[in-house]
Amino acid sequence: MNSKSLELAERLIPATYLRQAAECDVYREKQIQILIDQRKCPDEGWDDATIELLVNKLSRMDSNNFPHNCGVGERESRIYSGLVSQRHYRLGHGIGRSGDIAEVQPKAAGSSLLNKLTNAIVLDVIRSVGVPKTAACLVVPVATGMSIVLCLLTLRQQRPKAKYVLWPRIDQKSCFKSIITAGYEPAIIENKLEGDELRTDVDELERQLLSLGADSVAAVMTTTSCFAPRAIDRLEEVAKLCAQHGVPHIINNAYGVQSSKCMHHIQEASRVGRVDAFVQSTDKNFMVPVGGAVIAGFDSEFIEQVGKMYPGRASSSPVVDLFITLLSMGKNGYKKLLAERKMMKKQLEELMEVVVQKNGLRLLSTKNNPISIGMSLPQDSSSVLTELGSMLFLRGVSGTRVIATTDAKTISGHTFQGWGSHASDYPVAYLTAAASIGMTAEDINLFVQRLDKCLQKFMAQRNENNTSKEDNEDNLDNAVKS
Amino acid sequence: MNSKSLELAERLIPATYLRQAAECDVYREKQIQILIDQRKCPDEGWDDATIELLVNKLSRMDSNNFPHNCGVGERESRIYSGLVSQRHYRLGHGIGRSGDIAEVQPKAAGSSLLNKLTNAIVLDVIRSVGVPKTAACLVVPVATGMSIVLCLLTLRQQRPKAKYVLWPRIDQKSCFKSIITAGYEPAIIENKLEGDELRTDVDELERQLLSLGADSVAAVMTTTSCFAPRAIDRLEEVAKLCAQHGVPHIINNAYGVQSSKCMHHIQEASRVGRVDAFVQSTDKNFMVPVGGAVIAGFDSEFIEQVGKMYPGRASSSPVVDLFITLLSMGKNGYKKLLAERKMMKKQLEELMEVVVQKNGLRLLSTKNNPISIGMSLPQDSSSVLTELGSMLFLRGVSGTRVIATTDAKTISGHTFQGWGSHASDYPVAYLTAAASIGMTAEDINLFVQRLDKCLQKFMAQRNENNTSKEDNEDNLDNAVKS
Amino acid sequence: MNSKSLELAERLIPATYLRQAAECDVYREKQIQILIDQRKCPDEGWDDATIELLVNKLSRMDSNNFPHNCGVGERESRIYSGLVSQRHYRLGHGIGRSGDIAEVQPKAAGSSLLNKLTNAIVLDVIRSVGVPKTAACLVVPVATGMSIVLCLLTLRQQRPKAKYVLWPRIDQKSCFKSIITAGYEPAIIENKLEGDELRTDVDELERQLLSLGADSVAAVMTTTSCFAPRAIDRLEEVAKLCAQHGVPHIINNAYGVQSSKCMHHIQEASRVGRVDAFVQSTDKNFMVPVGGAVIAGFDSEFIEQVGKMYPGRASSSPVVDLFITLLSMGKNGYKKLLAERKMMKKQLEELMEVVVQKNGLRLLSTKNNPISIGMSLPQDSSSVLTELGSMLFLRGVSGTRVIATTDAKTISGHTFQGWGSHASDYPVAYLTAAASIGMTAEDINLFVQRLDKCLQKFMAQRNENNTSKEDNEDNLDNAVKS
Amino acid sequence: MNSKSLELAERLIPATYLRQAAECDVYREKQIQILIDQRKCPDEGWDDATIELLVNKLSRMDSNNFPHNCGVGERESRIYSGLVSQRHYRLGHGIGRSGDIAEVQPKAAGSSLLNKLTNAIVLDVIRSVGVPKTAACLVVPVATGMSIVLCLLTLRQQRPKAKYVLWPRIDQKSCFKSIITAGYEPAIIENKLEGDELRTDVDELERQLLSLGADSVAAVMTTTSCFAPRAIDRLEEVAKLCAQHGVPHIINNAYGVQSSKCMHHIQEASRVGRVDAFVQSTDKNFMVPVGGAVIAGFDSEFIEQVGKMYPGRASSSPVVDLFITLLSMGKNGYKKLLAERKMMKKQLEELMEVVVQKNGLRLLSTKNNPISIGMSLPQDSSSVLTELGSMLFLRGVSGTRVIATTDAKTISGHTFQGWGSHASDYPVAYLTAAASIGMTAEDINLFVQRLDKCLQKFMAQRNENNTSKEDNEDNLDNAVKS
Repeated sequence: MNSKSLELAERLIPATYLRQAAECDVYREKQIQILIDQRKCPDEGWDDATIELLVNKLSRMDSNNFPHNCGVGERESRIYSGLVSQRHYRLGHGIGRSGDIAEVQPKAAGSSLLNKLTNAIVLDVIRSVGVPKTAACLVVPVATGMSIVLCLLTLRQQRPKAKYVLWPRIDQKSCFKSIITAGYEPAIIENKLEGDELRTDVDELERQLLSLGADSVAAVMTTTSCFAPRAIDRLEEVAKLCAQHGVPHIINNAYGVQSSKCMHHIQEASRVGRVDAFVQSTDKNFMVPVGGAVIAGFDSEFIEQVGKMYPGRASSSPVVDLFITLLSMGKNGYKKLLAERKMMKKQLEELMEVVVQKNGLRLLSTKNNPISIGMSLPQDSSSVLTELGSMLFLRGVSGTRVIATTDAKTISGHTFQGWGSHASDYPVAYLTAAASIGMTAEDINLFVQRLDKCLQKFMAQRNENNTSKEDNEDNLDNAVKS
Repeated sequence: MNSKSLELAERLIPATYLRQAAECDVYREKQIQILIDQRKCPDEGWDDATIELLVNKLSRMDSNNFPHNCGVGERESRIYSGLVSQRHYRLGHGIGRSGDIAEVQPKAAGSSLLNKLTNAIVLDVIRSVGVPKTAACLVVPVATGMSIVLCLLTLRQQRPKAKYVLWPRIDQKSCFKSIITAGYEPAIIENKLEGDELRTDVDELERQLLSLGADSVAAVMTTTSCFAPRAIDRLEEVAKLCAQHGVPHIINNAYGVQSSKCMHHIQEASRVGRVDAFVQSTDKNFMVPVGGAVIAGFDSEFIEQVGKMYPGRASSSPVVDLFITLLSMGKNGYKKLLAERKMMKKQLEELMEVVVQKNGLRLLSTKNNPISIGMSLPQDSSSVLTELGSMLFLRGVSGTRVIATTDAKTISGHTFQGWGSHASDYPVAYLTAAASIGMTAEDINLFVQRLDKCLQKFMAQRNENNTSKEDNEDNLDNAVKS
Repeated sequence: MNSKSLELAERLIPATYLRQAAECDVYREKQIQILIDQRKCPDEGWDDATIELLVNKLSRMDSNNFPHNCGVGERESRIYSGLVSQRHYRLGHGIGRSGDIAEVQPKAAGSSLLNKLTNAIVLDVIRSVGVPKTAACLVVPVATGMSIVLCLLTLRQQRPKAKYVLWPRIDQKSCFKSIITAGYEPAIIENKLEGDELRTDVDELERQLLSLGADSVAAVMTTTSCFAPRAIDRLEEVAKLCAQHGVPHIINNAYGVQSSKCMHHIQEASRVGRVDAFVQSTDKNFMVPVGGAVIAGFDSEFIEQVGKMYPGRASSSPVVDLFITLLSMGKNGYKKLLAERKMMKKQLEELMEVVVQKNGLRLLSTKNNPISIGMSLPQDSSSVLTELGSMLFLRGVSGTRVIATTDAKTISGHTFQGWGSHASDYPVAYLTAAASIGMTAEDINLFVQRLDKCLQKFMAQRNENNTSKEDNEDNLDNAVKS
Repeated sequence: MNSKSLELAERLIPATYLRQAAECDVYREKQIQILIDQRKCPDEGWDDATIELLVNKLSRMDSNNFPHNCGVGERESRIYSGLVSQRHYRLGHGIGRSGDIAEVQPKAAGSSLLNKLTNAIVLDVIRSVGVPKTAACLVVPVATGMSIVLCLLTLRQQRPKAKYVLWPRIDQKSCFKSIITAGYEPAIIENKLEGDELRTDVDELERQLLSLGADSVAAVMTTTSCFAPRAIDRLEEVAKLCAQHGVPHIINNAYGVQSSKCMHHIQEASRVGRVDAFVQSTDKNFMVPVGGAVIAGFDSEFIEQVGKMYPGRASSSPVVDLFITLLSMGKNGYKKLLAERKMMKKQLEELMEVVVQKNGLRLLSTKNNPISIGMSLPQDSSSVLTELGSMLFLRGVSGTRVIATTDAKTISGHTFQGWGSHASDYPVAYLTAAASIGMTAEDINLFVQRLDKCLQKFMAQRNENNTSKEDNEDNLDNAVKS
């Protein structure tokens, strides 16, 4: 409603009421103006009405929503289904342009602006939660694995002769596959056992780097967030090596934004050595549906080049989700979630400690893993141990992993002994649980109760050598009663 | 409402009313059952109520929506914003699994099923509209360019020594970039001018294939749908060559599903020669927002391998859009849209013919381009001609392209003379318009009216050597009045 | 996005793209401005984006949506459920104020404006479709019956001694009950049979009016839209009588807005005599959910008094529905629907003619009923005839009425012979069907097919004196196959 | 998805995953079954997914959503606008039937069931929060004032000769108007001042009852929830009188469900005397948009008769809101809200006490008003005092009332001295604030801060005899900064 409309409305509604109502929108428009001016995530989250005001406005700025548009191109964003149109706020043109995912689309000024703003506020958030020196970031509508592929393909242009990616082992399939998909040969660095923890074997990494020759190495790929008992890689030491030998360094920070420790080590690594990019999942860090990642770095030119590697347009859906979510959280809201997560981690650890002691087991000591917790299991065959995982899953516990440490797996021609445990001979079977963003005290309480019940049953069954399936009766309903 | 509930409801509502109401849901459930059983796109489109019934059901099958779930993993699909959660029907886990985008997620049975069903019904649709021998297809949540990258990266695993992609020139940046991004060297085959049309120079292609050596060629990449005056590539002849030399053949069928001609040539090419995959955009063919593509082929194993190249999970949003849309259209609805498009193409051609004659210009004769139409422009500098494009855009015409044929452009080190015209020396400047799916008679009428006005003004201005910007006053409002 | 924001956005997006996008919103804002200025239903319907722009804006003008509101009243429109809040566009304060349903709420400038605008555009529509002299109207969030009660209660204030409502019989329960509920005694005027039609017995009406005494008559209540074979009441003659005797006249025009004939007679009646109010359903005339009515009249003061009779606030939901719907239709869209309805009525009549002839029955000739059509049935017991209605209902035909003419019904102490047929001794049993707004050719085709099948079966059963319930197997599924 | 579909899905998804997913829906369906079986508000609130599962199911049970319906009636619930259809879950038939708002509609089994269930769970809630002996209740889609009209119109049928409604004065316009609208003469009983409180003058009430004669009294209408310093009426004593004289007793419990004190007195009154109905607003007690009320009573027959007085159908929108909201809260959730409100009332009182003392004013002592709080103001002209209210409103405080006690108002011919203060000569000017359901600690903090600021400014202005409008600059923005 423009000012003329408001004036005309005074014929129908007393001016004082209208003026106060108008002022509230002035306030909302001011918030939007500050956003566009400063391109920072607002400190306080916005209400949904303001968010929708902005998203709807941006949507109306795309040509497919122009009232008198006639489209004679091959892509006019005609959306067939009303259900589909509405769930996308009538946004249809996606983001990016033929040659660059960050480029502006003439036909879609609104989508383009939304994309630019999202990249800016994500950058602001990343800087605010531990990596202040981040120079640029790019929100891409592909998940972490594919984002790493994009980084590696970008490096290929710079280092056409390189064939290898040096990779401290992390038993997460998509990390490994990203190397393969990008057309590289992985050079696997086995981890070193230090106490219960598995840590980067920096010496071995240097040895292989020298042996392969720095020029033939496309990148070293390290990992921050991972399942215990693996710890954050020794980022600083690796970064120094990379700087020294002129080798790119990509950090897989999949769900590390939520941990100040992961972020701190990235910041430090960039200070003392070389980090080309660190890549994080949007769903795991920002509580949106799976589908996006943030590629961030300390050299904006490299990030720009990654954007230019992306051929063609892409879905704006993950970007829209992130935009809405960060505006809704605000920086303070996000920091509050991070603080709560930290507390939940502590609480989860304490309560698991009680359960393991009661059941004659123990927690693994992994102080360099700020998210995931491991607890020992009695050594047994993989199939027997898996039983415990199933028990938990059937009781509505999702996300635990039971690791027998004795499985082997071959992926793209590489065989991993002890697959799942990040090591070929981890000394003890274990189960992991994680305290990730958004976890609640109720999650923890339900989990430890169910864990305790399952452990008791599992231990009893093992003693009786009785692994019959009677458990199946014991379904969710029972779990709920517990 | 289970049958017990319905029985109990008889205490409140007469049984006859309830029974009839229940029967309607039996009918809906039957439609769903047939879908899961036959995995074909229904002939008749479903109403939104049935679609939502199914999508909501699938959503409730994902663990993040289990009433008593407690999540202790690193990814539990906790969605922060209610706006985001709702627009995704509370689906959050995306599709795919670490190693394979087509794999089932234990935590997300519903999303996994939705993904499988979508792939199946898309396959059915593709078979129904012209390529009956298609063996498999994969809906991926990346657009055409990136999908071609995926195909090429998959070929790299099979042909590690190959370095080149043979590519009959098509001046669409993302096609070209997809070759670069995948790490290949493009071997560009200039098109042959035949009348007004630009067609594949098959002899030159064979020459280059032999000169580079079949083993060093990763693939030949042809194109169907494109802007006039370029025509569909000679798919059959290229396919024969590929078969003969054992070279993979990828077809960029970006918006070709909507054209029976494009589809027919793909089918024929696969019959007489080799086609490894044909790739099409979901937004351009199925009227959904930008963000997905369909990778289809005649050998299911190859399509499977492409799926396995995708590292990690991915957004399910483009898949959900396509699922909803195809169920809503039904096969008959889709075929009706295709038939209407064909009619619109004819009508657009006829009305443009009138306008060009009136303005002393002519249509280009491009009978092998079933979607795009070119009309000659007076030869002039690129900047002057661009003026005409701006005039049209300012009047709410989106999608025309004005090609001066004299521009040069360098992309990733390759310089293209006559960029935009698919040829280094196309003899005449021109403007294109396309009849794509969903176009209406009103679109056409508005377009030709505005085209006529703009042409007259443009011609007059040229005569006066007057290209001042007075046109700017002449904005959308005027266009609307016209 | 204010103009400052757009200017700032030029740092991110080229100014030309932004300017064009901005212009489109200027256009939308202009439409809104015209609406508020002229308070007429727009000729052309608006797109949903513009409607949502306005409704969202109005919602933000209500105090419960002010960003910094703190509420310390007893009613602060705090909405608990997100589902509820969203479906009402966050509107919560309803409409009206303690003493007047049309009054402005200081806390809810937006809702109040929406309410005023809705009343204005409905008035414009009513004037445009046949009653140009309408002086005022009031959209109330109660349906027709309750709206008539409101009118009668308003009359009670003016004519405290009146006890009777004169009422040409119409066998629709809620009309009759509205008299009772308002605390009046109905004086029933039986209809006269003229050919097949039942028409107002104006002489009898005058006789009763004189016999009761004009002062003791609160109002005469006539009816336009009704089931055949009853016809529109002789509004003009009644209106003249009312004028002559100084008796108020309320017209129940429940679904008559959709018929130019009903509207024309109302207009004429007001010209030649007295009409105090005519009342119409919003759902039946404007394709919104049940819940509202429009009370219109030729004297704005009376309509105002009706508004002031409504004690307290009321749901804004029916008003919002009507507002959205009329903006979406536009006046032209609505007129098109009316024209189509007229055509459908003709088509329905023609096809029913075929069916009745085939089955040895006949259509009733009721040229003064523009919506409903009656066809004769063989005379039989009510229970046997009802069977036919059930058959139809079980085949998915809703809305037919089977009238045996032999039933009697007592409502609030009054016994109606031949209940359902508007007469105590209508000579023939019959079935009615109506062509109401929104009906499609497919509705008609399905209906006549099913009618034909049911009639044949029904006739056969009667002949065999076999009315067993075997029909029940023959459910919707069969109907669908037909 | 029926069991056959799930079985077929096993071809696509491992059976174990499907089974667990299916179990969760079994759980949800069980919740629904229990609801239909027991017809009680669930103790624990349901998640939105379950609520939508049920509402969508009910919607599909209405004939307008039958896949193969063809409608030939005058009301087929064809909904024109997609926006409207969707916000009502495609429910269009409203509730009720010609003669009875509680009756089942054959065409709308789903809506009818939803209506029955809502009435049942509301009854359960009312019984649970203080009036266990409630026999029946009716949710009506009209607000409190109109609901009281319905009750009074129902009484008219039983007591055709009665002319008066005895009414202990409460200065809330719609209560008074409901008597007028129903066609009765109000007999006003002025309140007695006891300390600061205004209480029912039972002696005067009895005097008037006897003087008018019990037979000519349609009802006594008392009030529970009201603005301080008026207190809850002496319900028990009035109820005894009513029983003794055989006069109906209607209690206006507008926002009293949220107060255990109000509810307790109603229960007690019904125990010791006569209560025919108690009426409460849905928005004020259950946090839904304005538009509904609950008419409850101790004699189901009377409540049934009220339902039968409602002529015709009505909007189901307020019923749907209440259904969703109560399922979402659960009984425990609702009780928690009530407990919180009680705490907020205490906190509001304590903080206001601080403010009034600081400003040399005092709280009114009104222990029989459990919701509203009054604080004295310096005696001044009405227009000066109103200034203070405006100041507060402009700072985003909604809901306070400033009462000068010196205004007079004439409504429908009755003049009220001291309008707004429930008394003709209340000794002191005052301001009220209320702690109503959903109020938060933040509301209170903002309020008392703003109140303090405004009071200081107001007092200063009075001292300077300066009531200029400079305050206007001091708008919301300032308030926000505070």
